[in-house]
Amino acid sequence: MTDIRWDHDREARTGIPEVVFAPGKTLEQLVSLFSEGEGLRLATRLSEAQMEAISSLAQVDPVSRTAVRAPRASLDLSPVGVLTGGTGDIPVASEAVAVLRALGYPCLTFFDVGVAGLHRLQKVLPQLKDCPVLIVAAGMEGALPSVLAGLVDAPVIAVPTSVGSGISLGGTVALHSMLASCSPGIAVVNIDNGFGAACVAIKMINRLGRN
Amino acid sequence: MTDIRWDHDREARTGIPEVVFAPGKTLEQLVSLFSEGEGLRLATRLSEAQMEAISSLAQVDPVSRTAVRAPRASLDLSPVGVLTGGTGDIPVASEAVAVLRALGYPCLTFFDVGVAGLHRLQKVLPQLKDCPVLIVAAGMEGALPSVLAGLVDAPVIAVPTSVGSGISLGGTVALHSMLASCSPGIAVVNIDNGFGAACVAIKMINRLGRN
Amino acid sequence: MTDIRWDHDREARTGIPEVVFAPGKTLEQLVSLFSEGEGLRLATRLSEAQMEAISSLAQVDPVSRTAVRAPRASLDLSPVGVLTGGTGDIPVASEAVAVLRALGYPCLTFFDVGVAGLHRLQKVLPQLKDCPVLIVAAGMEGALPSVLAGLVDAPVIAVPTSVGSGISLGGTVALHSMLASCSPGIAVVNIDNGFGAACVAIKMINRLGRN
Amino acid sequence: MTDIRWDHDREARTGIPEVVFAPGKTLEQLVSLFSEGEGLRLATRLSEAQMEAISSLAQVDPVSRTAVRAPRASLDLSPVGVLTGGTGDIPVASEAVAVLRALGYPCLTFFDVGVAGLHRLQKVLPQLKDCPVLIVAAGMEGALPSVLAGLVDAPVIAVPTSVGSGISLGGTVALHSMLASCSPGIAVVNIDNGFGAACVAIKMINRLGRN
Amino acid sequence: MTDIRWDHDREARTGIPEVVFAPGKTLEQLVSLFSEGEGLRLATRLSEAQMEAISSLAQVDPVSRTAVRAPRASLDLSPVGVLTGGTGDIPVASEAVAVLRALGYPCLTFFDVGVAGLHRLQKVLPQLKDCPVLIVAAGMEGALPSVLAGLVDAPVIAVPTSVGSGISLGGTVALHSMLASCSPGIAVVNIDNGFGAACVAIKMINRLGRN
Amino acid sequence: MTDIRWDHDREARTGIPEVVFAPGKTLEQLVSLFSEGEGLRLATRLSEAQMEAISSLAQVDPVSRTAVRAPRASLDLSPVGVLTGGTGDIPVASEAVAVLRALGYPCLTFFDVGVAGLHRLQKVLPQLKDCPVLIVAAGMEGALPSVLAGLVDAPVIAVPTSVGSGISLGGTVALHSMLASCSPGIAVVNIDNGFGAACVAIKMINRLGRN
Amino acid sequence: MTDIRWDHDREARTGIPEVVFAPGKTLEQLVSLFSEGEGLRLATRLSEAQMEAISSLAQVDPVSRTAVRAPRASLDLSPVGVLTGGTGDIPVASEAVAVLRALGYPCLTFFDVGVAGLHRLQKVLPQLKDCPVLIVAAGMEGALPSVLAGLVDAPVIAVPTSVGSGISLGGTVALHSMLASCSPGIAVVNIDNGFGAACVAIKMINRLGRN
Amino acid sequence: MTDIRWDHDREARTGIPEVVFAPGKTLEQLVSLFSEGEGLRLATRLSEAQMEAISSLAQVDPVSRTAVRAPRASLDLSPVGVLTGGTGDIPVASEAVAVLRALGYPCLTFFDVGVAGLHRLQKVLPQLKDCPVLIVAAGMEGALPSVLAGLVDAPVIAVPTSVGSGISLGGTVALHSMLASCSPGIAVVNIDNGFGAACVAIKMINRLGRN
Repeated sequence: MTDIRWDHDREARTGIPEVVFAPGKTLEQLVSLFSEGEGLRLATRLSEAQMEAISSLAQVDPVSRTAVRAPRASLDLSPVGVLTGGTGDIPVASEAVAVLRALGYPCLTFFDVGVAGLHRLQKVLPQLKDCPVLIVAAGMEGALPSVLAGLVDAPVIAVPTSVGSGISLGGTVALHSMLASCSPGIAVVNIDNGFGAACVAIKMINRLGRN
Repeated sequence: MTDIRWDHDREARTGIPEVVFAPGKTLEQLVSLFSEGEGLRLATRLSEAQMEAISSLAQVDPVSRTAVRAPRASLDLSPVGVLTGGTGDIPVASEAVAVLRALGYPCLTFFDVGVAGLHRLQKVLPQLKDCPVLIVAAGMEGALPSVLAGLVDAPVIAVPTSVGSGISLGGTVALHSMLASCSPGIAVVNIDNGFGAACVAIKMINRLGRN
Repeated sequence: MTDIRWDHDREARTGIPEVVFAPGKTLEQLVSLFSEGEGLRLATRLSEAQMEAISSLAQVDPVSRTAVRAPRASLDLSPVGVLTGGTGDIPVASEAVAVLRALGYPCLTFFDVGVAGLHRLQKVLPQLKDCPVLIVAAGMEGALPSVLAGLVDAPVIAVPTSVGSGISLGGTVALHSMLASCSPGIAVVNIDNGFGAACVAIKMINRLGRN
Repeated sequence: MTDIRWDHDREARTGIPEVVFAPGKTLEQLVSLFSEGEGLRLATRLSEAQMEAISSLAQVDPVSRTAVRAPRASLDLSPVGVLTGGTGDIPVASEAVAVLRALGYPCLTFFDVGVAGLHRLQKVLPQLKDCPVLIVAAGMEGALPSVLAGLVDAPVIAVPTSVGSGISLGGTVALHSMLASCSPGIAVVNIDNGFGAACVAIKMINRLGRN
Repeated sequence: MTDIRWDHDREARTGIPEVVFAPGKTLEQLVSLFSEGEGLRLATRLSEAQMEAISSLAQVDPVSRTAVRAPRASLDLSPVGVLTGGTGDIPVASEAVAVLRALGYPCLTFFDVGVAGLHRLQKVLPQLKDCPVLIVAAGMEGALPSVLAGLVDAPVIAVPTSVGSGISLGGTVALHSMLASCSPGIAVVNIDNGFGAACVAIKMINRLGRN
Repeated sequence: MTDIRWDHDREARTGIPEVVFAPGKTLEQLVSLFSEGEGLRLATRLSEAQMEAISSLAQVDPVSRTAVRAPRASLDLSPVGVLTGGTGDIPVASEAVAVLRALGYPCLTFFDVGVAGLHRLQKVLPQLKDCPVLIVAAGMEGALPSVLAGLVDAPVIAVPTSVGSGISLGGTVALHSMLASCSPGIAVVNIDNGFGAACVAIKMINRLGRN
Repeated sequence: MTDIRWDHDREARTGIPEVVFAPGKTLEQLVSLFSEGEGLRLATRLSEAQMEAISSLAQVDPVSRTAVRAPRASLDLSPVGVLTGGTGDIPVASEAVAVLRALGYPCLTFFDVGVAGLHRLQKVLPQLKDCPVLIVAAGMEGALPSVLAGLVDAPVIAVPTSVGSGISLGGTVALHSMLASCSPGIAVVNIDNGFGAACVAIKMINRLGRN
Repeated sequence: MTDIRWDHDREARTGIPEVVFAPGKTLEQLVSLFSEGEGLRLATRLSEAQMEAISSLAQVDPVSRTAVRAPRASLDLSPVGVLTGGTGDIPVASEAVAVLRALGYPCLTFFDVGVAGLHRLQKVLPQLKDCPVLIVAAGMEGALPSVLAGLVDAPVIAVPTSVGSGISLGGTVALHSMLASCSPGIAVVNIDNGFGAACVAIKMINRLGRN
């Protein structure tokens, strides 16, 4: 692993430890990263083969494509709310959930509550009231964060997903919709970036929500 | 006007008469077009100077930037519903209204009912139930047609508008959102094309709604 | 199927029942969806493996990549006309046909009538006169809806297809052509969205064409 | 003002009152909006003419192009840090500052600390340590949020600006850089959207930072 | 004019003399270019001020925005056919006509024969049979070259124009449509490039059509 | 082959017979198309499997991925010149050659004469003088047609190829360069469209070059 | 000028002093910047009004839109070669020249030597042999750097210009062509960035060319 | 190898010998190219199969995907510095290193020093001071060249890599960031073009750094 300069100091500086982004890593590199040292180790975007290679060294979750070794104990905090527009967005939302839980932040999930059937969102609205932050993953036209942000006072972290077809394939339509939202108070991360959404939530809670 | 080949037969073939698209027309051409012949004449996208030039020859509406000579009598039909997300979308919606009314099709308007304050849409929902077709103009992230199409059984004709800022300037974000909608049953026209939306509605009513 | 919130009420609200969009669904999820309950069930965009998995539970059509269980009886209505520019557009048009027929709406098809050989369109024109709505699937430069909409009084629902090469690969050229058409009265849906075109047609017929 | 449906309830629902987006509003509409009622009224993106029209009804700031009537008293909170990469980004950052201060949230500003001269950022770093949230406006390649987010534990709200030339004209390069950042924990808003950044900060503080 | 390296040899090499592209030229430069030497001189894309500055030195045509000094005598050749889809495309077509006529190549024009009213094209079809080359200028969805190329055996030089609105503003939709045409035998030039279309026609005739 | 409407009349109308575009065709369809009738049959863009399926029914060329049955006898005409910038462009140029030769039009080829080593082009220049038309296939920055068109009086048909890497992957850079060329007299076809280039050349020769 | 943090140390660190980018600066700011202190001061991208405001404080060049106070004495070095494709590219090339000369680096200029008339480039080639670095500004299809880099051993710094029309308007076609060049050894800067090209040349000479 | 016109003279003209770009070459062609003649032969972008085919004829490096036969002896020069932002950028940087070393130019590498942990760059800064040129490969938001160019006086050759996800997939975000950099003196090459970066460095050193 000679070419990797591990940023041991990152958590002290930023509140978020270095996390392994799996694409491009060899199986040997991953096994080595999960074998050396001890304590928390977290990897995201694992392929099938990568998940199998480290399955005895960490807890692997095939939906979120993450692996965690030595997850932190759950903190006593109000849970982050994690929502999706459709079932296709669940892998992305699950990446956020996996990162949050590995680092000790509790979550509540509300999947498949997209705007095509608005009653589904209205039904879960009361349960969202206790969540200090909401992470919303949506593909296609990505309208759920707009509707939600007009209904709640919590900050909404919007995660566009690459779920879609035709013009929305790849997620740029959802990304642009979320950036262009008519509802103020929406913070956007990169397409499919469940990890990034979790990090924004963690930084908020660390700096604002624990005191 | 030697280079214009007027398509006199268009209304007989398609149900929609030829309408003057003003950009690029000289004031002389416009005055001539509104002076010659008689009966219905309709122009869209008029500039300030063009509106002034024909103000004595036709009814000019500065909001929709249209002019009409000899509008048709109102037909005895259920009204087309015309909605907007914000106040900035009103000029585009008004173009649809102007075209519909000039050709005799009654309309009802419901402006500024965008998804940032969902209660506004919910309040007008009962009045929409009688409209056989809904035209919805929205800019920015263009989420209103998605939400609406999940709540009603009328076909929704979505008109993206060029209202927006940053990434949504010019209307492509709204256009793409409407095409990518997770709610089935939305028909989309070009950006700011209130005229086109009216024509789709008219073709529907002519072929489907009068018998 | 715990994460799916089935929208049982959708047909009552919008006239269109919830339909299964297959991409991303596991074989187990699909088998379960076609095994549970009874009555109409419809899936689109099925892969080879997905079609095989449910072939004993539903009628599978490999051209349109759809499956239907318990299709509705055919309604006594004038048929929707479904056209394509070329033979490559047939799968998309067939998705529209499969959805219409599964829900009981009769169709007539007119394939390979693109503008490179205009006599083919002119030959079928008389048969189109009885169709209250026309669905037109075309790829490449997508000119067929423009030409057709100038010849008929029925509303034209244009479906751009991803058929093409070079600059038109993926369907955006056809999509943009249809939106920019010089012929008024064209309603556009997303690329390859035969399902969406069928839904627009159904909403039109339900609200306008049955009384 | 008949077509405007004022969302009186927005602050109660979301913590952020309705704010007037000036583009497209007539001078009459703006004067009326600032004359009617009492208490806080805030407008953004004012043109020169609009600023002049309401200069006797509100405090107008020509840099941020905002106007405020009856600003809220300053809350006793740690200040939001507002940074810019260059001097050209100051108008956008100032919009964020104006919105925060109008609603009572204290700010500290650190302008022209871009990455071309890194020592400028390093010099202000100690003063940033007390800020619970950082808003960073940057144009051109938009690298400042990436560098900053690797150095601090506060959440970074990145505002791409339209400042740039050639390929970066209009702000999409900065926007994309911020979304693609290798530093986790960055939340992005639309190009030039200082108002939106302020709203995200306010929602964070309201839900997380006051207890 | 020290910085201009006039390519005196161009016509001998390529059959097309150097032509002045006016944008960016000062009035002084243009006057100088039309004052010096003698024989044919041709300029395109002239502004109002530029046309006025050289109006006594050359024949100026305000529609095509061209100026010509000492045009060549008309050659005894079959005429090039020049068509447009709409009236808005006439300035672009006229640039092609002006270049052809200045260099001695006869033309016939057929304007406003777009596909929204197909009978207009069918009416002029017999007159096109004698034209060895057809230049077709069209904006919006640019479908005219596709339809025409399927009906005639002459090569079609397609000129997309910037005429359009919404998604087709600026001419890229027409450009892409023409490149993606399902009708073989279409050669495309840059948007609004009537001059370039004329040059292709001239090169064809010079090398192929005079023997 | 029920859904295919074969355009038997195309060659009579346009000078170019209908040619089979292979993508999307089943092996059965191709075998049937090459088994039925007699006389010329030509297919382009064949896959490996498609080439194998019809290898006993037609002459198959794996470089150009074409197949021809009963090619026309070579006409007594000056040859079309076909050039490429690099070796990677040869498959595209070969498609043009295959189409031309199948239809009886003689060709000369000049491959790998790109602008990075200008002496290669200068060396073949004398041989190009007899060619009435030049087809030039080039990828990457696509500069060869610009340089060539400034040196010869024959019309240049430019074929951008998808050869490239990074920003030029897929061919749009070459396409745009060719359209934007500073050398007048270049006609452009779609990316990788060797067939289209051949058709333009054939139309030119048929209408202009045989008399 | 309170918000400007002048980077006094930049020349010591990087070899290039801070230069004033004029867009967005008020006349007062510019006058102040050119009044305070002494020694070299350089501004680029000045508007007409800005040039007039500081005309008594610095040497203003209206072609390159630059102003310089106290230019450095010319260094005894081989000159940088600065070329343009056309006359329209001269303002961009002149910005490079102005920056180089203000900082003491000698230049030779070779304007209007684009590839449409290759003999012009071939004629100046011998004079380029002494230049250690070549800066090449070109718009439209931007082919000049490709051709030049295949002929010389000096590094080529390519500056795409926004000169063009239709598809090449704004300079992205030239930019992409230069990046995709088949000739190795081309370094590219942003569109119209003559200043940036000069800086690359200066850094090369400072680190490599003076010893 | 009949269709390849080998440019034997290239190194004499430009200082860089012709190098084999492997994509599209058959195994036979590659074996032939590495078998014929003697002396230096270099290939880039080799596939697994291509590397295996020539493994006995040349030194193959699987990380950079290059092969070299008869590399030049190392020149006695200050080393080129080659840096990467992350570990994913190493293959691209390694291509630059392989080309430089094959041609005799010494290099020093500094990998994984991206801006998310700025201390890593600051730590290697002293070692960069002796490098006359710096090549920097970075993906995602590509901020490393901006930060670096503000700290050193060597010219920075920036190589955007296709490493990224979501909006930055494929490398255009990094490319645009580098072009738009606020730090002057950055020269940019195509995405993933380690070879091109090496060529720019070599041309600099040859013309400027050896005397």
